[in-house]
Amino acid sequence: MAEPTSNFLIQSLRGTSQVFFMENAITGVLFFIAMAYASYASGMWLTTIGAALGVIVATLTARLLDFDAPSVSSGLFGFNGILVGAALPTFLAASPQLWVYIVVGSATSTIVTAAFSATLTHKWDIPGSTGPFVLTAWLLVAAAYSFGGLQVTGHPPSFASDYVQDAASVPPPLELVEIFFRNIGQVYLLGSWISGVIILAGIFIASIPAGIAAAAGSLIAMVVSIAMGADPVTVRQGLYGFSPVLTAMAVGVIFLKPSLMVSIYALLATVMTVFVQGALDVIIAPAGIPSFTAPYVLIMYLFISPKRLIGPHPHTPVSNHIIHSHGTDKAG
Amino acid sequence: MAEPTSNFLIQSLRGTSQVFFMENAITGVLFFIAMAYASYASGMWLTTIGAALGVIVATLTARLLDFDAPSVSSGLFGFNGILVGAALPTFLAASPQLWVYIVVGSATSTIVTAAFSATLTHKWDIPGSTGPFVLTAWLLVAAAYSFGGLQVTGHPPSFASDYVQDAASVPPPLELVEIFFRNIGQVYLLGSWISGVIILAGIFIASIPAGIAAAAGSLIAMVVSIAMGADPVTVRQGLYGFSPVLTAMAVGVIFLKPSLMVSIYALLATVMTVFVQGALDVIIAPAGIPSFTAPYVLIMYLFISPKRLIGPHPHTPVSNHIIHSHGTDKAG
Amino acid sequence: MAEPTSNFLIQSLRGTSQVFFMENAITGVLFFIAMAYASYASGMWLTTIGAALGVIVATLTARLLDFDAPSVSSGLFGFNGILVGAALPTFLAASPQLWVYIVVGSATSTIVTAAFSATLTHKWDIPGSTGPFVLTAWLLVAAAYSFGGLQVTGHPPSFASDYVQDAASVPPPLELVEIFFRNIGQVYLLGSWISGVIILAGIFIASIPAGIAAAAGSLIAMVVSIAMGADPVTVRQGLYGFSPVLTAMAVGVIFLKPSLMVSIYALLATVMTVFVQGALDVIIAPAGIPSFTAPYVLIMYLFISPKRLIGPHPHTPVSNHIIHSHGTDKAG
Repeated sequence: MAEPTSNFLIQSLRGTSQVFFMENAITGVLFFIAMAYASYASGMWLTTIGAALGVIVATLTARLLDFDAPSVSSGLFGFNGILVGAALPTFLAASPQLWVYIVVGSATSTIVTAAFSATLTHKWDIPGSTGPFVLTAWLLVAAAYSFGGLQVTGHPPSFASDYVQDAASVPPPLELVEIFFRNIGQVYLLGSWISGVIILAGIFIASIPAGIAAAAGSLIAMVVSIAMGADPVTVRQGLYGFSPVLTAMAVGVIFLKPSLMVSIYALLATVMTVFVQGALDVIIAPAGIPSFTAPYVLIMYLFISPKRLIGPHPHTPVSNHIIHSHGTDKAG
Repeated sequence: MAEPTSNFLIQSLRGTSQVFFMENAITGVLFFIAMAYASYASGMWLTTIGAALGVIVATLTARLLDFDAPSVSSGLFGFNGILVGAALPTFLAASPQLWVYIVVGSATSTIVTAAFSATLTHKWDIPGSTGPFVLTAWLLVAAAYSFGGLQVTGHPPSFASDYVQDAASVPPPLELVEIFFRNIGQVYLLGSWISGVIILAGIFIASIPAGIAAAAGSLIAMVVSIAMGADPVTVRQGLYGFSPVLTAMAVGVIFLKPSLMVSIYALLATVMTVFVQGALDVIIAPAGIPSFTAPYVLIMYLFISPKRLIGPHPHTPVSNHIIHSHGTDKAG
Repeated sequence: MAEPTSNFLIQSLRGTSQVFFMENAITGVLFFIAMAYASYASGMWLTTIGAALGVIVATLTARLLDFDAPSVSSGLFGFNGILVGAALPTFLAASPQLWVYIVVGSATSTIVTAAFSATLTHKWDIPGSTGPFVLTAWLLVAAAYSFGGLQVTGHPPSFASDYVQDAASVPPPLELVEIFFRNIGQVYLLGSWISGVIILAGIFIASIPAGIAAAAGSLIAMVVSIAMGADPVTVRQGLYGFSPVLTAMAVGVIFLKPSLMVSIYALLATVMTVFVQGALDVIIAPAGIPSFTAPYVLIMYLFISPKRLIGPHPHTPVSNHIIHSHGTDKAG
C-alpha cells in the first residue's frame, strides 16, 4: 500500500492505475499515455478527454461527500469514473448532452462504488471492482436511445439468431501478437495494440506477478476463443480478451494468495470468462448495449465469494480493490 | 408514526397512502378520490376496483400469515398490493383470469414484501419500497403473453432501434403545468393531471416537506427530460416524471435527514432517475413489459445503501417505509 | 440425514437424488434408470452420458478443492453438475467443444454452488438449490450462439409478440395422466412420462411426504396452466409442470415444517410458479435460452426468505438442500 496522500492529482492518477488493481501514480501516467496514443492514432481525442474528466469528477465527488479518506487516497473511488468517462464518448457521438452525461455518470459511479462497498463488500466480502462502471455505463448507453440529444454510434441491437458462427481459424503469428496486446488495451476500450504494450509495461512497473497474470490471461483468452470458433473479427479486435485478462489478475494474484491450486482455479475462471463474454454478447445484445467488463465482474464475484474455502489471504485492502471500512462503521 | 390500529379499513387506507411514504388514512382517502376521478374521466373503473381489491387482499394476507402487527397497522404490507391491483387492469384486458391474477398477485406482493424485508432491509439496511410491486407486476404482465385467458393491451415488445429520437422541444406553458401534475398522478398509473393535483394535496396534508420534495422532483424531471430530447409524447403523459418524484421524496426527505448536502445528493439521484427511466424503457422493452417504478427503485437502492456515509438519521421505521423487525427476530 | 461416506460412487448417486432434495443412493440409481429409459426411447444417449459426466466432474471438483466433506458426502455439490451435464447435450449438438463445455460447466457449477452457499445461504438463509445450475447453463447455452464449435438446437430467440395464445382446452383423460408424469420427468429434462413414473417411485422410496408434494405440485400445475389458457403443446410436454413440482416439494415439505398453513402457503407459491414459468419464457426468450428451473428458483427464494415468519423448522441441513458451514468458518 502506497503512502497516503491528499494531493488530488496523485489520487486521480492512482485511480487511473486501479483499473488494473494497481496503486501507482507512475502507472497511471503510463495508462494516460496509452490512451493518448490511441487517441492520436485514431484522431479521436474525446475518449482521452472523457477519461480525464471522469476520474476528476469521480474523485472530487468522493471528496465532497467526505467518503473514506484512505480509499480516496488510494484511487479506489476513481477507477470506475475513468472507465465511465472513457466509455461514453466511445459509444456516443459528441453533443452538449454528452458532457452532462459524463459529469453525472462519473459522479454517480462514485455513489454506486460506495453502494457496492456498503453491501457486496462489507456484507458479503466481495470486491465491487468495475461492477459500478458496468452498471452505470449500461444505464447511460441504453438511455441514449431514448434521448434526441444523444446518439449511439455503431451498436445496434442484435439477436442470438444474427450471430455468424465461423469455423475455428488460426490467425497468422504476427496478428496473434497484436491480439495479445489488444486484449490488454481493450480493458481501457483501446483498439490499439501499441497502447496495450504501454499498459502492460505500466502493470509490470507496479507488480511483476500482476504483469505475468495479465499476460497469461490474454494468452488463455486467445487460445480458448479461437478453439471455440468465436467470430474472428471480434477476436482480432481484442474483445474476447479484456475481461479474461482482468479475471486472471484478480483471481490469480490480487484477491487470492498465489499457489499452484489458485493458479488452476484462476485458469478455470479465465476460461469460463471467455465463455461468459460470448454469453453476455448474446444476452444483452437485444438492448443494444455492449457487455463492457461484465463477464469479468460476474465470474470474479462467483469465484471470489467462496474464497475462505480456497485458503486465507493477508488483509491488503488496497491491492484488494476494496473500499476500506468507513469512519461511521468503526463506531458500529 | 401514527397511532397503531387493528381496524382493517384504516390499515388499508394507510397502505394506500404509503405509496407516497405517508401513513395517513385521510391521505389514503384522497388518493382513492384521485383514482376514482381518473376512472370517471376515462370510463375505466377496473383500475380503481383492482386497486381496492389489491390493498384488501395484500393487507389480509399479512394478517392471516400473522406478519408483524405494527407494520400491518402502518400499511406497510398494503402499498405494493394496491399498485399490483391498479397496474394489472391498466395493462391487461378484463377476463375471469384477470381477477385470479389480481388476487394471487396482491397476495404474493405481501410475501415478496416480507422477503425483501428479511433480506435487503434487515441485512443490508435498504428499504424494499415498491420493489416488490415492480417484480410481481413484471412477472404477471410478462406471463400474460403466454396465457390465452389474458390479453396485454397496448404494450407490444419494442427494441432500441425503434426509438424515435426527437430534437428537444419545449411544450407551451399550460401543458407544462399539466405535465407537472401528471408526473405525480402516474405514480398511481393515472394519466389525469387533476388526479395529480388531488394526490399532491394528499401528500401536503400528511407532510409539507414531502410535498415540496414531490413538487421539486416533478419539476426536475420535466426540465431534464425535455433538455435531453426525450420523446415529447412520453414526456407529456407524465411517464418521465413519476419515478423521479419518488426518488426526490425518498432520497431528499424520507430516508435521509434533510440538509443542503442531502438536497444536492437528491438532485443528482433525481437527474439520474430520469436517465434510468430512458434506459429501462429500452432494456426491458424487448420483453413487452412497462418499467413501472423500477427506475426509482434501482436509484433509491443505490443512493440509500451508502447512507451511513451521508450522516445518521433518527430511526423512524414507518416514514422510513421499512418493515419492523418481526416477532421471531426479537428472540434471535 | 444418511450415513457419511467417502465412497465417490455413493456421493455421486446421492448428488443425483438431491435434484429432488433426497439423499439416497438407491433413489439416485432409479433416477439414472429414468434417464437411461428416456435415452433408450429417444435414441439420444448423450444426455445420460452428459449427466453422468456432470455429476462426476462436479463431485470431483468439490473434493479437489477440499470443500466441506459432509456436504460432499450428502451429494450437495453434485446435483447442479448433473443438471448442467444433462442440459447441455439437450440443447447443443454433439461436437468436441461440447465435451469441453460439459467438463468446464460442471466444474464451474461446483464453484457457483459454493458462491451461493457463502452468500445467499450463509448470509441470507436462503438455500441455493438449483440456482447455480440455472445460472451456469444459461451462460453456456447463450455463449454457444457466439461459438462456431457449438450449435444450439431448436431454441431460436422469440419475442412476446410471437406467442400463440390458445383458448383453454382440456386434454383427454389419458393424456392428463401422461402430463402428470411428464411434469415430474422434465425436472431432469426428460420428455418421457414413463421416466416420470420411475422418478416419482424413486422419490417415494426416499420420502413419502416428498412424493405426495411432488404429485400435488404436478396436479396444481396441470390445472392452473390449462385454466389460464397456456399453449397446449407446451403443457403436453410437461414444460409447465416441472418447476411447480419442485416448488411444492421445497415450500410444502422440505424447507418449512409441514402444517395446514404451510400447505396453503405452498399452494400459493406453486400457482405463482406456473405464472412465473409463463413470464420467464417471455422475458428470456429474446436471448434464445430456455428458462430451466428458474421459475422454481425465483419463487422458492422469495417464499423461503421470510421463513422465520412462518414458524421455526428443525435444522436438517441435508434435506434442507443447504451446504453445511465450512471448515474455515468454524474458526471464524
